[in-house]
Amino acid sequence: MIGVVTNAGFDMYPYYRPYFETEAPEIRVVAPHSVERPEQVSFVFTFQPAEDAFAPYPNLRAIFSAGAGTDAIMACPSRPEGVPVFRVEDDDQALQMAGYAAFHVHWHHRHMALYLARQRERVWQREITRLSPTHKRVGILGFGHMGRAIARGLMALGYPVTGYSRSAPQPPEPGMRHFREGQLDAFLAETDILINVLPLTDQTRGMIDEAFLRKLPRGAALIQMGRGGQVDEAALLRLLDEGHLCGATLDVFETEPLPADSPLWAHRDVVITPHVASIPEPTFVVRGIRDRMRALGGG
Amino acid sequence: MIGVVTNAGFDMYPYYRPYFETEAPEIRVVAPHSVERPEQVSFVFTFQPAEDAFAPYPNLRAIFSAGAGTDAIMACPSRPEGVPVFRVEDDDQALQMAGYAAFHVHWHHRHMALYLARQRERVWQREITRLSPTHKRVGILGFGHMGRAIARGLMALGYPVTGYSRSAPQPPEPGMRHFREGQLDAFLAETDILINVLPLTDQTRGMIDEAFLRKLPRGAALIQMGRGGQVDEAALLRLLDEGHLCGATLDVFETEPLPADSPLWAHRDVVITPHVASIPEPTFVVRGIRDRMRALGGG
Repeated sequence: MIGVVTNAGFDMYPYYRPYFETEAPEIRVVAPHSVERPEQVSFVFTFQPAEDAFAPYPNLRAIFSAGAGTDAIMACPSRPEGVPVFRVEDDDQALQMAGYAAFHVHWHHRHMALYLARQRERVWQREITRLSPTHKRVGILGFGHMGRAIARGLMALGYPVTGYSRSAPQPPEPGMRHFREGQLDAFLAETDILINVLPLTDQTRGMIDEAFLRKLPRGAALIQMGRGGQVDEAALLRLLDEGHLCGATLDVFETEPLPADSPLWAHRDVVITPHVASIPEPTFVVRGIRDRMRALGGG
Repeated sequence: MIGVVTNAGFDMYPYYRPYFETEAPEIRVVAPHSVERPEQVSFVFTFQPAEDAFAPYPNLRAIFSAGAGTDAIMACPSRPEGVPVFRVEDDDQALQMAGYAAFHVHWHHRHMALYLARQRERVWQREITRLSPTHKRVGILGFGHMGRAIARGLMALGYPVTGYSRSAPQPPEPGMRHFREGQLDAFLAETDILINVLPLTDQTRGMIDEAFLRKLPRGAALIQMGRGGQVDEAALLRLLDEGHLCGATLDVFETEPLPADSPLWAHRDVVITPHVASIPEPTFVVRGIRDRMRALGGG
């Protein structure tokens, strides 16, 4: 079986090839310029495809994203209709997200910015009330594979967790409440720390705007792990400055890399990480492609 | 039933009285100077008792610590032999510890000091390998109520977890390996991030010294949530400087508050918090006392 590895950004081919050799010896992966018989190519593995990335291959049976998102692939003009697009959905990446979420929930709940500042000033001063996780209601916006792993991690740490998703997740996750379409306002009104893991779609673009954020209770925090383009960054800064929000963690941005002149960098209540909440381990990604191609049936 | 609330440090009586009124109306708590009939006092509730704190009360049936540690109570010369000493062992406090542990595991594993420094310099630079929790083996030193909650939290986040305790915990915790007396070196050799939650005893005082820390693999990190007096702070700094350890989180210290001239404050690989990994919520503490006194049998 032959697969093409192609990407407009980071050159994925040399990075991934050794993992295919180890984990999926029945698959031969090639870079686009090395393809001799395009009709023999069974799948394309990409993240940000060039406009014509899919054009040469008439017999594709699958398209694989190297990440959890497929927005660039879905928008690619040469993507053939009817060929299924698979995103990374490995447990390991979901657990990376869960660890990131747990860290930032603790950051906002347990005053970590304050303690790091006091350490720099050699000040021993304790905040001794309301340390119980029962005092912070965590709401997870988007409840797929990742939302579920995040919920499980936070519940194991004692946090009361709710989730919002368009349709009810199957199965529902024990120990938490699920909100669905039509209940967004009620969900937000009960959320002290909001974790967004929604994908970028026409519905979610620009969704987290000023009106949306004002539906959170005063003093809430936002942990943005979804996609840039979902959060109105100017509105977020306004609500932080007026104290409606107490803090924000941002891993994804409208423009990445985040421009050096963005006011987000220097805001005292904002934590910025450079899109590293999770990065799929190539071993697990390649195993996922291998298993999916086997399930689709031989070469 | 009458209980005395007494403490040499922080004045616990006015702080706790309202919680007894709400949660345990059958108990009347008093400050030592208000005791009229010392022979009617059934228990003492304290954390750091004065030397003669227990002397006036001939009919004590229990002594309660306001924290997870009982070292000051056990060392008190007026403590009557044969009266049981109970420490706070509430699930809520254990979950606070678990949240703290999860935060600092992520801190050391996922380069958070580096990212916060880069944010200050407006630098977008990513560390993209080895983000999977499977790459960091977490070892929990001391495996009681708190160690178990920490283990469960970290396993829910995907970390491989082991525990060390003198005797095998009952029941063993599913999904992890337990080491016991005689296996400490093997335990340390397989631990990338060591979390200490041992109590302070004659055996654990000074236990985490240079020879002990050298048994961890190169590049390991220490999260110290036990008691000051267990870690040789000078040895810790030496091993950080020579790179044997990559980082340390310290919540408890030989001297508290940590003196302003301690070199720990300014070490770039050290995170300091002022003994706030967990602070029992008074509601849960008082409920624990109430339930324990009920179990010991009426007034």
